[in-house]
Amino acid sequence: MESIKIGLLGLGTVGTGVYRLLEKQAEEIKHKAGVNTVIDKVLVRNISKTREGIPTEVITDNPNDILNAPDIRIVVEVMGGMEPAYEYIKSALMSGKNVVTANKDLMAVKGGELMELAAQNGCDLLFEAAVAGGIPIIRPLKQCLAGNNITEIMGIVNGTTNFILTKMTNDGMEFEDALKMAQELGYAEADPTADVEGLDAGRKIAIMASIAFNSRVTFDDVDIEGITKITAKDICYAKEMGCDIKLLGIAANTDDGIEVSVHPMLIPSTHPLASVNDVFNAVFVHGDAVDDAMFMGRGAGMYPTASAVVGDIIDISRNIVFNCCGRIGCTCYKQLKIKKPEDCVSKYFLRMQVEDRAGVLAGVAGVFGSNNVSISRLIQKASDDNTAEIVVITDEVRAGNFKDSIAILNGMSMIKKISSVIRVYG
Amino acid sequence: MESIKIGLLGLGTVGTGVYRLLEKQAEEIKHKAGVNTVIDKVLVRNISKTREGIPTEVITDNPNDILNAPDIRIVVEVMGGMEPAYEYIKSALMSGKNVVTANKDLMAVKGGELMELAAQNGCDLLFEAAVAGGIPIIRPLKQCLAGNNITEIMGIVNGTTNFILTKMTNDGMEFEDALKMAQELGYAEADPTADVEGLDAGRKIAIMASIAFNSRVTFDDVDIEGITKITAKDICYAKEMGCDIKLLGIAANTDDGIEVSVHPMLIPSTHPLASVNDVFNAVFVHGDAVDDAMFMGRGAGMYPTASAVVGDIIDISRNIVFNCCGRIGCTCYKQLKIKKPEDCVSKYFLRMQVEDRAGVLAGVAGVFGSNNVSISRLIQKASDDNTAEIVVITDEVRAGNFKDSIAILNGMSMIKKISSVIRVYG
Repeated sequence: MESIKIGLLGLGTVGTGVYRLLEKQAEEIKHKAGVNTVIDKVLVRNISKTREGIPTEVITDNPNDILNAPDIRIVVEVMGGMEPAYEYIKSALMSGKNVVTANKDLMAVKGGELMELAAQNGCDLLFEAAVAGGIPIIRPLKQCLAGNNITEIMGIVNGTTNFILTKMTNDGMEFEDALKMAQELGYAEADPTADVEGLDAGRKIAIMASIAFNSRVTFDDVDIEGITKITAKDICYAKEMGCDIKLLGIAANTDDGIEVSVHPMLIPSTHPLASVNDVFNAVFVHGDAVDDAMFMGRGAGMYPTASAVVGDIIDISRNIVFNCCGRIGCTCYKQLKIKKPEDCVSKYFLRMQVEDRAGVLAGVAGVFGSNNVSISRLIQKASDDNTAEIVVITDEVRAGNFKDSIAILNGMSMIKKISSVIRVYG
Repeated sequence: MESIKIGLLGLGTVGTGVYRLLEKQAEEIKHKAGVNTVIDKVLVRNISKTREGIPTEVITDNPNDILNAPDIRIVVEVMGGMEPAYEYIKSALMSGKNVVTANKDLMAVKGGELMELAAQNGCDLLFEAAVAGGIPIIRPLKQCLAGNNITEIMGIVNGTTNFILTKMTNDGMEFEDALKMAQELGYAEADPTADVEGLDAGRKIAIMASIAFNSRVTFDDVDIEGITKITAKDICYAKEMGCDIKLLGIAANTDDGIEVSVHPMLIPSTHPLASVNDVFNAVFVHGDAVDDAMFMGRGAGMYPTASAVVGDIIDISRNIVFNCCGRIGCTCYKQLKIKKPEDCVSKYFLRMQVEDRAGVLAGVAGVFGSNNVSISRLIQKASDDNTAEIVVITDEVRAGNFKDSIAILNGMSMIKKISSVIRVYG
């Protein structure tokens, strides 16, 4: 039986998971792919560190032991970050090696260029682990749903923020406390910026939108807002209105361009995504033939991520056996334009503290009216100190118009504070 | 650009959907697969019927126009039923044609033989549409999750019964009324046996278990029970206990064999499957690496089913272009034994009417005790006419032992009636 040699770039959490899972599944893979898969070399930073269960002879700190090894057919990049991952992957593809990567940062920015390079060299570049961890989403989109015109893809694609919002919803915690808890449990990093500011979700929705709409969407195209301003009170009001608040990566293919963003959003509690809690991720797809479909699972973690990486390794092994590497490459054959954020349309939830006197409501309504913002629902609650709290839900409105109204409201003396502005799904 | 000719066997609801979707997606498929896909011939029963949008010259009532046509590379079987579909598919494979089928009846019984035949002839035999309609599940299992040891797969895989149970749950309808409504809405057939008796779900769980556990499971292996005995009252009691009742196809790979069955089951309302309502389907998978994953969508209907069929056609087209047909064939390389139904272990919900007098509870408890059935929860409700209603939830118990207890209880004069026996998940 043929043996396929694999080079592993990186031995952090995911790399260790991949190493162990490949070892555990070696016998099964022989049956599934018809070949032996062998990890030949593992690139690490510090070769002197002892690593249980990994023979020292496979460890190296020289990337050329993998990138220049003629008999290594598959390079698995699980280092993360832009550099040197970018250079390593380019080098691997240019010498005809197939690549598996879990690197969303890189694929969201350089995906098009790397897929092109893979195609030029007749190689596979697979990245199932780069989006939603262990959840199968890339093959379903590129293969199972290939007969669809997909018009919308959205998802809860960041477990850290979903955990925080779940704690805020179920236990009434405030953001800071829930974040602290997430950090203590190891769900959030010491510097949580990439998660709580929506950057991680932005990378994933860029990758998913590219595949769903067959047109390249990069990280820079994504309009991004995190969850740091969400309060327990917002969540309470959302609940009163039959909604939950989730951080959604959301992309729509409209007649006048692709809308792509990450925002906290009110979503009806009856929507399948609303019941996806804790660190779970889910991706919701709408296609013209399949209608609605949803994929749920663990979006991060050592073994869920390794599950996706090893699935890609097995697939490439099958391609090597059948001599058909590069069989499914880049599917971005269109060049659709990206809509400007201000031209995108949404409903909004707005919470503000105003003077508790006659004429205030009329003033607010007047500002909205003159900016083409139509109000769907308005709740006024009395408060202390001659202050009333007003909660407004708008109809669908162009973001630019809504922003203009907010600027005007902010300048009016009768408006004491605009506490929250949150998009509403649907 | 190369053209791939397709022969379509059957032009009912699914066949018509496939024809239209392929036509609509023709340009996209050129980009995705790098070939033209052309429906060359369509086999129908009655060639004199006019069919809008389908040229008469492609219509035939002679199967040999497809099966013996040397330039037809892909045969799409959407007739359903065992014969003549079985003979047609065999004939197609034996003459080296690739096959796409949506036929669960056939694949659940003859899947092993047909996959073997496909392998012998270097052909693809794809059947994504045969399980859970439009929901991508076969590629996710065979490819994305190939690095997992999957220990459990279960799902709501019949839309008709899920619609009926949803109506019984949300509107308090009785089975007969909900069935009638389903029939009026076109969700249930005039003869609803295959759906309500769980046969359809049984075929699907057999196919899914085969793939998940890499060992052939056929329809005959599945222990099947339908939903005809479920009452609105059972659902009320389930709700009181924080559960919903769903018809689940469920398969587990245990140390002493595969458990595979279709049963109505109480499932915690917090479980992701519990919120899958109406005609929606969902499949829940547990793997050692990926942990829990769930796939949801439409399990039937013209276009969701066509979505799966066309996805398979596109995949085969790519294989033809890359000369790698048969790249992923049968993955049943193990021969695991199937556990007998009576050796399977479950929790049970039991509802019975008993004489309302001292000693009855002790009698019931005694029967359970002597059969190794441990009681987890017991609720006694007063009723009319010296009758009390008792609801019992057991701990996990061997089905054989539980059945023995029920037989004894049924023979006791103090037990007036055993109204319901329903399995409890988890």
